[in-house]
Amino acid sequence: MSVTAAKGFLACGVRSGMKTEGLDLALVRSAAPAVGTAMFTQNRVQAAPVVVSRRHLDQAQPQAIVLNSGCANAATGERGELDALATAAEAARLLELSSEQILLCSTGVIGVKLPLDKLLLGLGLAAPALSETGGDDAARAIMTTDTRPKQARASVAGFTVGGMAKGAAMIHPQLATMLAVITTDYPLAAGEAERFLRPAVEHSFNRISVDGDCSTNDTVILLANGAADVERSQATDQEFGQLLGQVCHELAEQIVKDAEGFTVLMEVNVRGAVDEGQAVAIAARIASSPLVKTAAFGHDPNWGRVMMAAGSAPWNGGYAELDPSKVTLAFNGTQVLANGAQIDATPAMEGVSCVIDLDLGLGKGCASYLASDLSYEYVRLNAEYTT
Amino acid sequence: MSVTAAKGFLACGVRSGMKTEGLDLALVRSAAPAVGTAMFTQNRVQAAPVVVSRRHLDQAQPQAIVLNSGCANAATGERGELDALATAAEAARLLELSSEQILLCSTGVIGVKLPLDKLLLGLGLAAPALSETGGDDAARAIMTTDTRPKQARASVAGFTVGGMAKGAAMIHPQLATMLAVITTDYPLAAGEAERFLRPAVEHSFNRISVDGDCSTNDTVILLANGAADVERSQATDQEFGQLLGQVCHELAEQIVKDAEGFTVLMEVNVRGAVDEGQAVAIAARIASSPLVKTAAFGHDPNWGRVMMAAGSAPWNGGYAELDPSKVTLAFNGTQVLANGAQIDATPAMEGVSCVIDLDLGLGKGCASYLASDLSYEYVRLNAEYTT
Repeated sequence: MSVTAAKGFLACGVRSGMKTEGLDLALVRSAAPAVGTAMFTQNRVQAAPVVVSRRHLDQAQPQAIVLNSGCANAATGERGELDALATAAEAARLLELSSEQILLCSTGVIGVKLPLDKLLLGLGLAAPALSETGGDDAARAIMTTDTRPKQARASVAGFTVGGMAKGAAMIHPQLATMLAVITTDYPLAAGEAERFLRPAVEHSFNRISVDGDCSTNDTVILLANGAADVERSQATDQEFGQLLGQVCHELAEQIVKDAEGFTVLMEVNVRGAVDEGQAVAIAARIASSPLVKTAAFGHDPNWGRVMMAAGSAPWNGGYAELDPSKVTLAFNGTQVLANGAQIDATPAMEGVSCVIDLDLGLGKGCASYLASDLSYEYVRLNAEYTT
Repeated sequence: MSVTAAKGFLACGVRSGMKTEGLDLALVRSAAPAVGTAMFTQNRVQAAPVVVSRRHLDQAQPQAIVLNSGCANAATGERGELDALATAAEAARLLELSSEQILLCSTGVIGVKLPLDKLLLGLGLAAPALSETGGDDAARAIMTTDTRPKQARASVAGFTVGGMAKGAAMIHPQLATMLAVITTDYPLAAGEAERFLRPAVEHSFNRISVDGDCSTNDTVILLANGAADVERSQATDQEFGQLLGQVCHELAEQIVKDAEGFTVLMEVNVRGAVDEGQAVAIAARIASSPLVKTAAFGHDPNWGRVMMAAGSAPWNGGYAELDPSKVTLAFNGTQVLANGAQIDATPAMEGVSCVIDLDLGLGKGCASYLASDLSYEYVRLNAEYTT
């Protein structure tokens, strides 16, 4: 159900022929006028759909989203931007909206021109296919080598948040790209969406690591149409924020669990940091260290590598503060270090989960990161010759 | 010859029994009083030999170095520091120096206590074994799973610079650790060594990447004893700086070529950057990107991944500036992008070398990085269960 779980949202997934097989074009729209926002990759090389969507968000409230897999339309220059604008214009015509109300997402091979003819024909199929039950197909249409669609929903009495995402996977061994669309029937006023989306993304999509590489196409969109019959209050706002956080977290976890070469889910919990920023920096460093990730793949509670990574986390222009004699560390609940002293214990590491709890003993800052391990299969997927 | 190439230096490598087989303890000293300096890892978790060596450098000019493989003496707390001090004291007694004149380097498993009894017995063997031809044995004694010793020397009329290093390799899948000792008979005054060593290290050991992980033990030491019969001038200073840079560069290249799982030497050259700092940031990001490194392993001129990495290089608290429409990119000498426009060409990628030339078209800053690829063997070496 995902993006059509909330009232008043329509979606579909169709086949335009851009990919060699399967659904490859998704459309999501709100039936009634909606408000919304988006967060984009910080990469200095931004895909054409990112450039155009940014501009549209400055000009209007988003009402519909066109998402294609099979081509990232990234590093395609001026031609790529014209193709993106043409896509938005055709979607606007079909949906009786203005171009500026359309957001665009693309995922797939980088540096390849968008097959615009196929995409426009696909849009002609997609517009009449929009339905209240189209969320599943939409989630399927944005997959590249994701092995399964990624969907989540959460409701309380009165309103619903639903979302879909695609994760780190590739058609050809190209760029990993993360896309997510979240819809809600909770009523938000224009300009309010970002205040809710930013912290939810910060604690979910921004706290996962597959390989530390940052895509040119990453986009998270929130659309809110107010179709739910709910009286807003501080309490419902808080509930909405929680649902949004839950949906983002579930989608982020699904992305990690379907990452390239995934065999072990690493959960890195840092506490006792000077503040949250320091905790995030250290958790991110541990979650993206190749030596920690290969140890996770090898089911090895290799605490020396965690200390190495923790001690070299970039922060405030240097490395984050750390006092080894105050550190307590556990793998899967079994302590191996307590206040810097080694404990003779053997954590159980056989499972598909590697929980690393690191207490720096410095303050009250904490943060968690989810990450995949680094396996032979990750190397194979990304080394296969294709060009 | 390495560290004994320059006049007046003695070295040896002996077996103390800390490793399961082979030489594992090296000693290097200057026969006459020398001056020197060292540069250490910036990791917040610093091994005991690093802590003690730092302190000694503040108190005296270094005259001798004790290096052991088989144990990193890192994350070993107060006990580790006492063991390091005891090592320095015994070396000082045997060599008739003061403790503060001794520097210490350790490499091997992290989090394991130093087998001090073996080390002290080994020192008893090492002191009388010191000789002017002991450089080879010393270079061999600091190897862990390095497959070959790393040595370099360079001379001009009058003086010599020689060095040895160990690189990114492991006994058990633990921390990669880089150590280097460079000796010269060029005359330097106390306090001058750092001025020469810092730029040489900056352009060699600080411009290589195996896996982006930063060790607790990294140390580079320079000893200069002035035993050469040379009249110093601005010209000889410049010559010395060049020799030092050459020796550091050769050792750094040997480290990359003997890195874990090495199959392809990546040479990343960035030019046209705003300044050197920006060029270094972008070259480092490309050289450590898992997606770029797996593509190198796969002999794939995957220019999209290079653009992705270049666009997400941390710099000045954000990502380094980049205008995709100004970028020119070549693999092994064949252009694939010119001023942002794709060129239909197929670079030859069959060899063991992958040269990436990236011109940002923004300014005059340039920098080069050497890196190893990311292979199955890297994953295997680091995932094998040992703990």
